[in-house]
Amino acid sequence: MELIKNAVDRYVPTEVNGKKVIPYMGIGKYKPTGRKAAPPIASCIDYPPSGNKIVESIREALEGCGLRDGMTISTHHHFRDGDLVANLIFQEAERMGVKDLIWFPSAAFACHKPMLELMEKGIIHHIEGSLNGPLGEYVSHGKMRGLAVLRSHGGRYRAVQDGDVHIDIAFIAAPTADMFGNANGVEGPSACGLLGFALADSQYADRVVVVTDNLVPFPCIPWQIQGNYVDFVVKIDKIGIPEKIVSGTTQITKSPDRLLIAELTTQFMVDAGIVTEGFSIQAGAGGVSLAVIGQLKEYMKEKNIHSRFMRGGSTRYLVDLLEEGYTDYILDGQTFDLDGVRSMRENPNHVNTSPFTSYNYHGKGNFASMIDAAILGATEVDVNYNANVVTHSDGLLLHGIGGWQNCLFGKCAILTVPSFRDRIPVLVDNVTTLVGPGELIDVIVTERGIAVNPLREDILSRLKGSSLPIRRIEDIKDEVEDICGGKPQPPRLKDDIVGVVEWVDGTLIDSVKAVED
Amino acid sequence: MELIKNAVDRYVPTEVNGKKVIPYMGIGKYKPTGRKAAPPIASCIDYPPSGNKIVESIREALEGCGLRDGMTISTHHHFRDGDLVANLIFQEAERMGVKDLIWFPSAAFACHKPMLELMEKGIIHHIEGSLNGPLGEYVSHGKMRGLAVLRSHGGRYRAVQDGDVHIDIAFIAAPTADMFGNANGVEGPSACGLLGFALADSQYADRVVVVTDNLVPFPCIPWQIQGNYVDFVVKIDKIGIPEKIVSGTTQITKSPDRLLIAELTTQFMVDAGIVTEGFSIQAGAGGVSLAVIGQLKEYMKEKNIHSRFMRGGSTRYLVDLLEEGYTDYILDGQTFDLDGVRSMRENPNHVNTSPFTSYNYHGKGNFASMIDAAILGATEVDVNYNANVVTHSDGLLLHGIGGWQNCLFGKCAILTVPSFRDRIPVLVDNVTTLVGPGELIDVIVTERGIAVNPLREDILSRLKGSSLPIRRIEDIKDEVEDICGGKPQPPRLKDDIVGVVEWVDGTLIDSVKAVED
Repeated sequence: MELIKNAVDRYVPTEVNGKKVIPYMGIGKYKPTGRKAAPPIASCIDYPPSGNKIVESIREALEGCGLRDGMTISTHHHFRDGDLVANLIFQEAERMGVKDLIWFPSAAFACHKPMLELMEKGIIHHIEGSLNGPLGEYVSHGKMRGLAVLRSHGGRYRAVQDGDVHIDIAFIAAPTADMFGNANGVEGPSACGLLGFALADSQYADRVVVVTDNLVPFPCIPWQIQGNYVDFVVKIDKIGIPEKIVSGTTQITKSPDRLLIAELTTQFMVDAGIVTEGFSIQAGAGGVSLAVIGQLKEYMKEKNIHSRFMRGGSTRYLVDLLEEGYTDYILDGQTFDLDGVRSMRENPNHVNTSPFTSYNYHGKGNFASMIDAAILGATEVDVNYNANVVTHSDGLLLHGIGGWQNCLFGKCAILTVPSFRDRIPVLVDNVTTLVGPGELIDVIVTERGIAVNPLREDILSRLKGSSLPIRRIEDIKDEVEDICGGKPQPPRLKDDIVGVVEWVDGTLIDSVKAVED
Repeated sequence: MELIKNAVDRYVPTEVNGKKVIPYMGIGKYKPTGRKAAPPIASCIDYPPSGNKIVESIREALEGCGLRDGMTISTHHHFRDGDLVANLIFQEAERMGVKDLIWFPSAAFACHKPMLELMEKGIIHHIEGSLNGPLGEYVSHGKMRGLAVLRSHGGRYRAVQDGDVHIDIAFIAAPTADMFGNANGVEGPSACGLLGFALADSQYADRVVVVTDNLVPFPCIPWQIQGNYVDFVVKIDKIGIPEKIVSGTTQITKSPDRLLIAELTTQFMVDAGIVTEGFSIQAGAGGVSLAVIGQLKEYMKEKNIHSRFMRGGSTRYLVDLLEEGYTDYILDGQTFDLDGVRSMRENPNHVNTSPFTSYNYHGKGNFASMIDAAILGATEVDVNYNANVVTHSDGLLLHGIGGWQNCLFGKCAILTVPSFRDRIPVLVDNVTTLVGPGELIDVIVTERGIAVNPLREDILSRLKGSSLPIRRIEDIKDEVEDICGGKPQPPRLKDDIVGVVEWVDGTLIDSVKAVED
């Protein structure tokens, strides 16, 4: 494998899974020149005038799509660890005697462990998509044929749009659908809120199959996925485990350290002048983020400040803000609890978004750069503010990128991290895997103080007079190393590269190496 | 100009405006093989991170789009005869010294008469789009360089999607928009309901400009047009004349003959078993269609029958049905009065559709074929049920096709026509221009009786026992000729071809000849 050093001094392959790739060149340095992917022109001649595209089984749909060896099949992850559909597809492919498939999920979870066996058997050649937990670990141990390609949500949309990934067959598990293939995520026993992660798949795949457990008479309204892109519709008994799709009980952190991080984050946003009338923020569904939302709400009520829009992943904490009139809109990419689903179903100001609207770097702008503040996490951060979200300090690949890289383009990108985890420092000299370049990361909030990227002189000057513990990142790191008994052990890695990390523009920002057994 | 005889024995050119074209081959006979048009890949590098794409003027937008000689500029016609934007664009182009532009409107109206002067001056080379009134007449007199290409709403989407028409710059006049280019038609002083006719333009044009007179803070919700496709936003004082955008007073016909046609149509649908629980129909905003809707409503109330969905063009008559619970949904392509606009804004079951969802023949099915009955008009119908909607008996090109061809794919396509107009028979031996092939036209309803296409034996058998005046089309025609003093005079046409009529699949079904002066 030929390697080349990129603009952040990381070695990356020149070719990935048989395709030429481009090393990371710096933020805003690589400019695409081609044209978007062009799916085949369909014709109504080939579809029933009645609009009825229902077939009896996944098998029949796969046959209708002309499944054969080596094809790329995509799925989405709105059901998270409660997905019941992806495994069925590939298990059926096994029964059909097909091999060397590429699975292109928007993300894979522990529930997809059966895919490991299918990789061992050769049914699946490799997985291209966010790999959480056991699937990432499998890759880390060098067991997968082909390289893992880690992309952000926006990067995945971009890769499909730009033709880097050609999807032969897209499967879209849909909580509600009609015979024509119109589908949504807000209704039905497996409601997951929305289906934005499957948008690119519907638009660009050669063939599209909707799988539902809740078939309604045409028209299925709203149609988050448009039936005009769909070839077949399959009804099965159950597409997801509701308790795992949405927790229903996403909770504010109770850890005193993390509550402190949340308080420092909230105060930082106030002191830095971010929380003003009409502001916008994006925070995820983690315990710290939820605590921040709760604290912000108190502050907004006290000062009578309103947000123009909040970005989801939505939870009841965001929904409360919307329903109490403290934000005009929730622009939501993923609902994380039942209140989020309900609100999206009932409230026209709780708007479903997609990686196209929010994150696609190869669009005519996107929403991510318009956010006043994005509150994110990380597994490691280095003294140059570079950060890692995919591997742990031991080198194991355990997480996907999600919208993380995309959100770094917000006007203020804040990483909230404990300064150490399990007595291993999170602040390091050099991140194991460089997923986000430091020049886009503005603020690190730990329980031991806040580090502001020296590049952001504007923020530093706005913080003059603040009582917040603003510290040099090196100072916090030194203190943590004292507590933890020194720097973290370097991960025990082989030279073999098992995966690559794409930047939002499709260039390679880093590689993931195999771990020693 | 080389001509070839097509499958309905009409002579059509082999090349139109420098591009090879395919003669009509019969319904469902031409199958496309290529791939969709592929717009250039954009990059966020080229767009402001703030999301603010506002420029000061149409001039600045045209300059930003790199306007030059020969480019194709598109507009939509949701403002109908009240559009104030299209003329501005081309008048500005004139000031910029540009020439030989192609105007690609979804339809042109009398308000666009200034374009004729711009064609005379060479600023506009030719118009490709539905031509109503004076613009069609101009073409009929052989005054336009280039051929007029008449397409249905679905055919226009198809042509853009398939790459037959490449739009260099799309202008989208939007009643409400934000700085990012998200836009809708339901809010603002120039509200027109929706913007579906501009969807293809937004998706496929190289450059997209949104022009609005009602700029709202980001995000503009709903975003019927997505800002991620938009390059520039321009605010002007007034984009449309509200009274001409929606009449506010679309009325049921008062003509006794037309009321009779409406009654026969309603009774036909009842007797043919179309009006049953869960049925669907499409009727336009003409006086006869509105009368049918009113009569249907009475019948539905009496029999307690509900429709699953009604297709708009919407008016208050459809909105009444929705609000009183007699239809679950309105699937609407165009709002024709203020009640339609209000309902679409307020009622989530009044759904905006597009030529993509409803009419595109080169999609994976579309809505048009799923309708139980479509009620349409015509300028002429011949004894083989072929029909004309674009020219009059004198050969003058005066109307666009609209969704007419697309709706013929409904399960029962009904043409409601007076048997004569101004003492000229509407039923003829041979239509002047063949726009819809007879095999798709099922029923002709005149004030003198109903003719059912003999191909539809199923309908004829369902009508056994009906008291309706079911007659042979030839018999009605003969009667009308007696009344009118013979067959209509053949139009006085030259041999010169001035326009072509596309079928929904992009093949040419007929030509339009110049009229003698």
